[in-house]
Amino acid sequence: MKQELYVNNSLTRKKEKFEPLNPPFVGLYVCGPTVYNDVHIGNLRSFTSFDIVYRYLTHLGYKVRYIRNITDVGHLVDDADEGEDKIAKRARLEQLEPMEIVQKYTNGFHDVVREFNLIPPSIEPTATGHIVEQIEMTKTIIDNGFAYVVNGSVYFDVKKYNEKFQYGILSGRNIDELLSGTRDLDGQDEKRNVLDFALWKKAQPEHIMRWPSPWGEGFPGWHIECSVMSSKYLGLQFDIHGGGMDLKFPHHECEIAQNCAAHMHDTPVKYWMHGNMLTLNGKKMSKSQGNFFLPQDLLSGEHPLIDKPYTPSAVRFFFLQAHYGSTLDITMEGLQAAEKGLRRIQAAWKEWSNLPASGSSSVNIAEWKQSCYDAMNDDFNCPVLIAQLFEATRIINGTKEGNIQLTKDDIALLGETMRVFYFDILGLNVESVGGNQDNNTVGGLMNMVLEMRMNARTKKDFATSDLIRDRLNELKIVVKDGKEGSSWEFLN
Amino acid sequence: MKQELYVNNSLTRKKEKFEPLNPPFVGLYVCGPTVYNDVHIGNLRSFTSFDIVYRYLTHLGYKVRYIRNITDVGHLVDDADEGEDKIAKRARLEQLEPMEIVQKYTNGFHDVVREFNLIPPSIEPTATGHIVEQIEMTKTIIDNGFAYVVNGSVYFDVKKYNEKFQYGILSGRNIDELLSGTRDLDGQDEKRNVLDFALWKKAQPEHIMRWPSPWGEGFPGWHIECSVMSSKYLGLQFDIHGGGMDLKFPHHECEIAQNCAAHMHDTPVKYWMHGNMLTLNGKKMSKSQGNFFLPQDLLSGEHPLIDKPYTPSAVRFFFLQAHYGSTLDITMEGLQAAEKGLRRIQAAWKEWSNLPASGSSSVNIAEWKQSCYDAMNDDFNCPVLIAQLFEATRIINGTKEGNIQLTKDDIALLGETMRVFYFDILGLNVESVGGNQDNNTVGGLMNMVLEMRMNARTKKDFATSDLIRDRLNELKIVVKDGKEGSSWEFLN
Repeated sequence: MKQELYVNNSLTRKKEKFEPLNPPFVGLYVCGPTVYNDVHIGNLRSFTSFDIVYRYLTHLGYKVRYIRNITDVGHLVDDADEGEDKIAKRARLEQLEPMEIVQKYTNGFHDVVREFNLIPPSIEPTATGHIVEQIEMTKTIIDNGFAYVVNGSVYFDVKKYNEKFQYGILSGRNIDELLSGTRDLDGQDEKRNVLDFALWKKAQPEHIMRWPSPWGEGFPGWHIECSVMSSKYLGLQFDIHGGGMDLKFPHHECEIAQNCAAHMHDTPVKYWMHGNMLTLNGKKMSKSQGNFFLPQDLLSGEHPLIDKPYTPSAVRFFFLQAHYGSTLDITMEGLQAAEKGLRRIQAAWKEWSNLPASGSSSVNIAEWKQSCYDAMNDDFNCPVLIAQLFEATRIINGTKEGNIQLTKDDIALLGETMRVFYFDILGLNVESVGGNQDNNTVGGLMNMVLEMRMNARTKKDFATSDLIRDRLNELKIVVKDGKEGSSWEFLN
Repeated sequence: MKQELYVNNSLTRKKEKFEPLNPPFVGLYVCGPTVYNDVHIGNLRSFTSFDIVYRYLTHLGYKVRYIRNITDVGHLVDDADEGEDKIAKRARLEQLEPMEIVQKYTNGFHDVVREFNLIPPSIEPTATGHIVEQIEMTKTIIDNGFAYVVNGSVYFDVKKYNEKFQYGILSGRNIDELLSGTRDLDGQDEKRNVLDFALWKKAQPEHIMRWPSPWGEGFPGWHIECSVMSSKYLGLQFDIHGGGMDLKFPHHECEIAQNCAAHMHDTPVKYWMHGNMLTLNGKKMSKSQGNFFLPQDLLSGEHPLIDKPYTPSAVRFFFLQAHYGSTLDITMEGLQAAEKGLRRIQAAWKEWSNLPASGSSSVNIAEWKQSCYDAMNDDFNCPVLIAQLFEATRIINGTKEGNIQLTKDDIALLGETMRVFYFDILGLNVESVGGNQDNNTVGGLMNMVLEMRMNARTKKDFATSDLIRDRLNELKIVVKDGKEGSSWEFLN
């Protein structure tokens, strides 16, 4: 059965049937990180949400060109047109060349997304890699009458734009309200209107990141890069634009305005998708308040706010237990529960290949399979999909215990469906507990070691069981004996 | 003692004392890959050589800014100014957007260099990321009278340049000989002289990679990017420029000419260093001849020309057993010998912490330590350094057997020196045999398993030794019993 996908479109504020502009091709643009510091766990969650979007669209058979940019210039400290460039500021603090900062944090970002099993985008363009194109689009916007030049800077004229197009179409804001709610210009400001934003900024003499332009030496504004890179690689109209909720206004609003002003047509993007925010222990994450840690701290477990190491899959699973459009609160209880749930599914998955086949099935597996699709078809509803994976766990355990009957074909269908949704679509792995270890070999060796330990105990061969204990201690592996057998994990 | 480093300077063809322009800062530029296919093992060797240069300079206390670029446009199929762009051609063959090709092979390159423990450069700039700067430098060269515009392309005027500067200064070629040895221009050619080379090429209508310029839409020539990126990030004069021997002419010769023509001064680079070429089983590596494999094939062992998997450190060690300026022939015998040598050093390293101390030393360890530095000070002579590490192995084994006496302080000095040269400077690791596994945990578990296996055999407990054999088989681990005890490796 062909799947019908519905997407919650931020632009129309409706859940809409997904119909790409040029099937089977899909253009997907996601705002990437500004590489002036370590990637925030809230951003990681957002990138993970769009990783799922990419994986599911690909699974459905679409040929997805997936662009996620790197912002390496133009993003100022106050997120608007004032203050220092975030990267230039960091370069000053770390006493490095701005591009060394860019390299350092781009490498760090790549390490983290690889660790958490995010699929790399088809193209990862940089803002500094598209200076020519940003100058060209700025020229076009000036030519079309929607921008003006002041003292070597170029500003987008929101009022003028709003006469022909609708500024506020995405964020649902009314331009008159916006104008009345903001401070008056003091006459010293280069902007004609407080809502206007920079397309190009004149570089002050001390500014290192600078390029020649028709308006003198300067650097691009923050918003123009995404308009340039999305239209360059996906065309003047494309399917999906994603990003964090905090980017909806002004960043995405300005992107739409720039594209419309340059290309003189409405709706550059058909579906806008926004990931929601993250809190930690019920509060906004904040470095200065001490309510903050990095994604990699969850893997090492080495942080006062973190109780123990978690695997990348446990963290992914935790993220995905909330819908991308909902806020998510990180707590250690939540992570522990996610880890436990993940292990339950993994345990069932291991049992699956040994299930006994019956002549007929007492559960409708084809229907269950469609429920998995239904979950994802409903705006990528991962929590509901995960509930279906728990349902599969129940079916496997029931079959093992003889309370449920399945035919050989249904067992195969059950396993294949689990495999597709667990590995391919949710991007989860079967990992040893305790972080980033070689899963198969270490896990396999530990299974053997636990078996030998049990044998030794049964035979009261304490020399062997002591040897095992001592050697595992040296390797910082601790074994725990429980009702359901022994398990092990790496010490913190 | 302050170390005196000598470098074989390709520019002067002499071994010269290394004296940076602005100590303690050192600028190091290395020509990186053209990302249109998987990284060639010859390139990997060359990048590894400069990884050692970077590591040793850093160890000596220099503050090194290390630039290694990514060529993502402008490199034409024939390495000169004819033929298709390598990336555009690959994009056509793989039916992808050129920047998708760039992303794919950049990711692949990063995977390989990470695997082989190369330290990432401080900045990894791309050619497409510096279009503005390439246009600016081309304008300057035209303004200075060393380039001319024909039909929307810009060519460097070698004859004109040679009147003021010396074309051929690096490669030692005589411009008159070069001219007489090449074909005459047929009058149809845009170039005035066969030696002239493109700074900017007009884009044909079908060419996707194109940017606006003062000369119309086009793309930069291959050589200009390195001139631009080295001078942008390291200044108009900098210390070391490295690359493969095959880049010396014309690429590096053209780089010097461009820098001199733009900045009107001699010697943009103080020391030029060139890594030598690689052969496979005595012949040039060639895909079409079947005499070819990729770096990652050595790790998996899965290639008809490769006998078994090698660890990244074994391959590095094999590379470093030849001086970077010498050709190196890859053979399986050579790799096996390297692996064996590496294990001998690793085994000694493990013994080191248990050495018995004496009241006096019968070997001069301080002298031995200086010999290690002497090796590296002599143009980064890694084979000689490795001989000194074997000497350390001999000393450790002699001390263990009581034939050599060392004081506690000398034992400490020996170990610390080995650690610095083995891990920090040569970038080697202590790995389990059998490729890319979690070294410490898998190795530690296997040591325990082999110990239990020996115990079981001693006690004639065949149930346990059979269990171990079967489980290891499942994990594709094979145990080999030899004179010096049991060893293990992963099956191919």
